Amino acid sequence: MNPADKLIVNLCPTGMVPRRSKVPAVPLTPEEIAADVRRCREAGASMVHLHARDDDEEPTWRPERFQQICQAVVAEVPDIVVVVTTSGRNWSELDKRAASLTVSGPGRPEMASLTLGSMNFPTGPSINSPQTIEGLAEAMREREIVPELEVFDVGMANYACFLADKGILRPPFYANVLLGSRGTADLSAANVAAVLAGLPEGTTWSLAGIGRFQTRANTLAAALGGHIRVGLEDNPYYDWRDKSDATNPRLVERAVRIAREMGREPSTPAQTRAIIGLKPVDRA
Amino acid sequence: MNPADKLIVNLCPTGMVPRRSKVPAVPLTPEEIAADVRRCREAGASMVHLHARDDDEEPTWRPERFQQICQAVVAEVPDIVVVVTTSGRNWSELDKRAASLTVSGPGRPEMASLTLGSMNFPTGPSINSPQTIEGLAEAMREREIVPELEVFDVGMANYACFLADKGILRPPFYANVLLGSRGTADLSAANVAAVLAGLPEGTTWSLAGIGRFQTRANTLAAALGGHIRVGLEDNPYYDWRDKSDATNPRLVERAVRIAREMGREPSTPAQTRAIIGLKPVDRA
Repeated sequence: MNPADKLIVNLCPTGMVPRRSKVPAVPLTPEEIAADVRRCREAGASMVHLHARDDDEEPTWRPERFQQICQAVVAEVPDIVVVVTTSGRNWSELDKRAASLTVSGPGRPEMASLTLGSMNFPTGPSINSPQTIEGLAEAMREREIVPELEVFDVGMANYACFLADKGILRPPFYANVLLGSRGTADLSAANVAAVLAGLPEGTTWSLAGIGRFQTRANTLAAALGGHIRVGLEDNPYYDWRDKSDATNPRLVERAVRIAREMGREPSTPAQTRAIIGLKPVDRA
Repeated sequence: MNPADKLIVNLCPTGMVPRRSKVPAVPLTPEEIAADVRRCREAGASMVHLHARDDDEEPTWRPERFQQICQAVVAEVPDIVVVVTTSGRNWSELDKRAASLTVSGPGRPEMASLTLGSMNFPTGPSINSPQTIEGLAEAMREREIVPELEVFDVGMANYACFLADKGILRPPFYANVLLGSRGTADLSAANVAAVLAGLPEGTTWSLAGIGRFQTRANTLAAALGGHIRVGLEDNPYYDWRDKSDATNPRLVERAVRIAREMGREPSTPAQTRAIIGLKPVDRA
């Protein structure tokens, strides 16, 4: 089998927005997150994009919490590819945003998110200044953490090339293209084509769709030879017609079912590392 | 002659960035701006996008200064289409950004800029929150000022459709698509196609290129049936090979020469109003 046919399933189980009252199945504690990652690993997820919450469900940047979560996850699923967020959605200081990079021990992150520009979410601006982007990229380079590039619009893809030309970003390149958030690029054929054409050569790319666009974005990526990001962080509903609640395992299972219909099997974590170009990890 | 073949030349003579020490021909005072607009009108410009500076060359939001500039411009060139900026690049408060809309008398603005999202400039973020965008759009609607939509990326084109669907933006639609600023969409075929495909139906569109991309963006627009924005605000050099200084009239003259080679004559201000769908204005 051609390994290029393998599909990387990047799970985003929690995020910063879903609250238990509206998204009953969102995992919040280290134990809940670890248990959900195990179920999603069984369904085909090979990497996980982690956010942290405090005891009141509020997003937190505190490294102790990230440490607990990453440790719990790899205790439950030793082979998973561990990715942490550096989102500045709720705080902007560089040291807070880089705090998740300091997780050590077996749960040490192999990758971390890096959003490549400023933008609007429906609720307000999300600021990622050129200085912050360079600062986070440097902090990742120092720790040999590979950026999970977050691209919400074609300008962010173009900016990845600028940073690669300047040597601020270095291979391997992995990009999550997130489409369908109000304020940035819609999910359309023209937009998908422009973003993919704009990414640095050799980028391993994944499509994520916000809200109702998740399944369509995932399906497009599977059909176009890309990879996927899926989970409750981006999409609270299993079916937008009746707004029935989703769970992370059900979302992963559906995406994998669709990909399998096209002959694409989910990659194992070891295969995911090989496709992206990450170093092998042995936590056993 | 088919009026659709006419080319709208939107002059951006001053902006917020050029300083006299680096851009010797940038017009700053009301008299300098008015004189430059007259020369550019003779060269083919039919509308002008105005920024204000104080006596120290610093950008200012003060309505008295906008009043002086608009008045001086229409005293010198009575038929020109008057557009004012509402840029939040140097201040963010809604009332400061909307102050330019209050200009009254014969220099009353017919249009005003409305940037449709948050973004990075090379020097840092430029924040246009959803709330600010809606507030400015409402202030324009109350005064019957037509927005000059500023689109730096495909997500901003998509956002124009969202605002049009909500009735926050109403026809006529005129959009300046600005490509080539580091941090937002590059000037590429895929990006031009995606942005134009994303704009609301019936939008009169114009291409602007930042810096070295100005002449290429203008030429693409002339060839593709669009319109142009040209001037020292976006581009300080006449020739980027030797970095020779530009002047506003020389930039307009070159763009018009190229368009004429393709059979496109610059529109008069009355024709520009008819193409965009602005009300006729008689200042004589």
